[in-house]
Amino acid sequence: MLRSCTAGLRSLWALRGGREGVPRLSTDLQPAPVSPGSRAAKMDRKRLFSAEKVIHTDCALPNPSWSKDLKLLFDQFMKKCEDGSWERLPSYRHRSTQISEDFKTYFLEQKPVKEGRLSQVRLFTRGFEDGLGFEYVIFKNNDEKRTVCLFQGGPYLQGIPGFLHGGAIATIIDTALGLCATVPGEAVMTANLNINFKRPVPLCSVVVINSQLDKLEGRKLFVSCNVQSVDEKTLYSEATGLFIKLDPEKKSF
Amino acid sequence: MLRSCTAGLRSLWALRGGREGVPRLSTDLQPAPVSPGSRAAKMDRKRLFSAEKVIHTDCALPNPSWSKDLKLLFDQFMKKCEDGSWERLPSYRHRSTQISEDFKTYFLEQKPVKEGRLSQVRLFTRGFEDGLGFEYVIFKNNDEKRTVCLFQGGPYLQGIPGFLHGGAIATIIDTALGLCATVPGEAVMTANLNINFKRPVPLCSVVVINSQLDKLEGRKLFVSCNVQSVDEKTLYSEATGLFIKLDPEKKSF
Repeated sequence: MLRSCTAGLRSLWALRGGREGVPRLSTDLQPAPVSPGSRAAKMDRKRLFSAEKVIHTDCALPNPSWSKDLKLLFDQFMKKCEDGSWERLPSYRHRSTQISEDFKTYFLEQKPVKEGRLSQVRLFTRGFEDGLGFEYVIFKNNDEKRTVCLFQGGPYLQGIPGFLHGGAIATIIDTALGLCATVPGEAVMTANLNINFKRPVPLCSVVVINSQLDKLEGRKLFVSCNVQSVDEKTLYSEATGLFIKLDPEKKSF
Repeated sequence: MLRSCTAGLRSLWALRGGREGVPRLSTDLQPAPVSPGSRAAKMDRKRLFSAEKVIHTDCALPNPSWSKDLKLLFDQFMKKCEDGSWERLPSYRHRSTQISEDFKTYFLEQKPVKEGRLSQVRLFTRGFEDGLGFEYVIFKNNDEKRTVCLFQGGPYLQGIPGFLHGGAIATIIDTALGLCATVPGEAVMTANLNINFKRPVPLCSVVVINSQLDKLEGRKLFVSCNVQSVDEKTLYSEATGLFIKLDPEKKSF
C-alpha cells in the first residue's frame, strides 16, 4: 500500500535538507545551490569522494540534432541575454547518482521502485537520446514575466502519423508554463492545464512557445501561452495553466 | 518551408490507400486492415519479400516490468473480456519498416526529418524500453461507451522528484480519452484537453483511468475521465476532452 503523497513529500523535504532551503519542485529541475557547511554540502563532498560520479549535463544547449531554424533562434535569444534582460534557463537530465541517493529512502519506503531502478530515474523531457525526443531551450525575461521556449519534437514523439502526439505538446506546454510561473527559490505545482489544439504539429519541426504570467492571487499563479510556427504564421495551440506556489512550512498540497 | 497540415494529410491519405479505407488517426495506432488486392496488400506483399522485416509487437500485454498490482488488474479485465462485453485494445510501437515506407514520401516532401531518421519514428507512448516509460493496457466496453486504462508510469517519466511529470499524466489521459472517443473505422483528433491535477502520482505506481463518452454532437465527441489509485481511495486527476471526428472526404482539420 502506498503512503499518502503528503507523507511522501514530507520524506522528500527531510531528505533534501528541511529548513536549510526551499525545496525545488519545478517541472524542470536544476541542481540546488549549496551553502558551505550545510547538510547538502556535506552530501556533495561525500559524493565527490565516493566511487560514483555526479553528472550534470546542461541539455538546453545546441547539439548536432538541432535544425538550422532552432540554432538560428537560439543564437538570436543568446544575443538578447547579453544586456541581462533575458536569461537562458539551464536544464538537466538527472542521470547522476544524486537523485538515487537523495530519494533512496523515499523510494524504498514507498516500495514502488525496485532498487536496481533507482539509477534509471530521469526527467521526462530529458530522458531521450539527443534528437529523438524533446529538444528545447527556455529563455526568461523576469521583468516582463514571460518566457520563450524553442522546441523541436523528435521522431519518438509521434501521435498521428507525421505529427506530434497531443501528450508531447501538453508536456512541453506544462514545462514552459511551469518555468514561467516559477520564481527562483520558489516551488510550484501544476493544478490545471487547459489546452486548445488548433492544428497538429509536424514531427521534427520547430515551434516557439510564448508564455506569460497573467495574474497572481495569493499562492495561485495564472499563466497562458501559445504555440506557433517559427514564422508566426501558424498557430498550433493555445493554453492556460494554473500553478500553485507550495508552502514549505505546510509541506502538503 | 513546411507545407500546410492539410496538404500534408492529403499526402498521408493518398499513401494509405485513399478511398480504399478510412484513415486510422487515433492516438494509439494499430495496423490498418488490409483488403486483398488493394494497394496496401500489394505493399504488404512487397514487404514480405523484401530484406526488411515487418514487426508488430503488441505492447498491451504483460512483460516482466509489470508490477503485481498491474498484472492482477490485467487478469481481472481479461476475465471480463470472456463474455464479449469488454475487449482489450492492442497497441503497437511502430518500429516496423511499414511506417518508414508508408510515410517516406510524406516526410521527404515535408523535409523536416532526415532520411536516416525515418526508421526511428515511434508512437510516443511506446518508444521506451519495457518498464522505463508508459506501461499500459486499455479495455473498452462498447455498449457502455467507456474504457478503463491500467497504467504504470516508469522511472523515465519523472517530473518533481519521486512523482510523474504532469506531461506524462496528460499523455496517458490523451491516449485513454482518445481511444474512448474512437469508434473502429473512424478517425478522431484532440481539440481540447482540460486537466485538473489533484495530487501528484508516485513514480512507478499503478493507476486506473476510467473514461466515458459523455456526449456526441455532430462531429464533436465530449469525453471525461478520472485517474485513481488501484484501491480507489486517491483521486489523482480529473479531465475532460473534446475530440473531433475527421471527415475523410474533406481531408482537412
